[in-house]
Amino acid sequence: MKGIFSILVENKDGALSGIAGLFARRGFNIDSLAVGRTENDDISSMTIVSSGDQRTIEQIEKQLNKKVDIIKVRRLSEPKSVSLEMMLAKVSFTLANRSSLVELCQITGAKIVKVSPKYFLIEYHDDPEGVEDFIVMLKSYGIMELQRTGTISMEK
Amino acid sequence: MKGIFSILVENKDGALSGIAGLFARRGFNIDSLAVGRTENDDISSMTIVSSGDQRTIEQIEKQLNKKVDIIKVRRLSEPKSVSLEMMLAKVSFTLANRSSLVELCQITGAKIVKVSPKYFLIEYHDDPEGVEDFIVMLKSYGIMELQRTGTISMEK
Repeated sequence: MKGIFSILVENKDGALSGIAGLFARRGFNIDSLAVGRTENDDISSMTIVSSGDQRTIEQIEKQLNKKVDIIKVRRLSEPKSVSLEMMLAKVSFTLANRSSLVELCQITGAKIVKVSPKYFLIEYHDDPEGVEDFIVMLKSYGIMELQRTGTISMEK
Repeated sequence: MKGIFSILVENKDGALSGIAGLFARRGFNIDSLAVGRTENDDISSMTIVSSGDQRTIEQIEKQLNKKVDIIKVRRLSEPKSVSLEMMLAKVSFTLANRSSLVELCQITGAKIVKVSPKYFLIEYHDDPEGVEDFIVMLKSYGIMELQRTGTISMEK
């Protein structure tokens, strides 16, 4: 199962490293991580998506709650939350398949950020499954470079 | 100055914690961090935005290059790169200012993902400065909750 944790943490040296160390020491997976500032400069928000059996996910929640530099941990329910992710990809094309790549971007709502003779720089955002699917479709053209943000989630 | 590092790292327990620990031990800032999977399941990509004087930024690059589980480090030049970020916010409104909030979303291209009697759930993506500006504009309505991804960057 998947565990989505929304965490508020003090914006201090070592806070991130403490959390990453906790996951590493205990062998908890980090499938995705997003760290961003909040409207308060002293506080950062983190979304960690992990996977494991129910016991593991409960253990993660418990351990996170014990950490002193963590202000708040919330475990989000997947069906009751909005989850989004963004990606940037450099995708190569040929004269023969360029139109098909442009069409793919049009039907999915992906944005061509930069056009060069050999590749497009493409931005796309969707729920994590949608981003996965889009990447599968891009693979037939040739992905030269790919950057994904981690997932951010919020209760509806 | 700002240092933008695009890093490919082996997808192993402890890789993230090692990098976070390096920043913490040496007192390097992490302004933003995005960790995502790549098209290869064994490799994760990371974008770290840090700030400091030129010597510090060079030190960070050097130290990152020394880490064994890091496959590749690239320092990106800000003017030659595309940088993007995404955010989700729960923004409260009243009957008196609802139209103005809807208009703000229309003119900025922000998307209202969910409408409830008391708040909108709003998604917005832009370069990091654009996201900052949008958050400043949201503050006058009332931000109940905010989640930002870290910045992802790619050379044009």
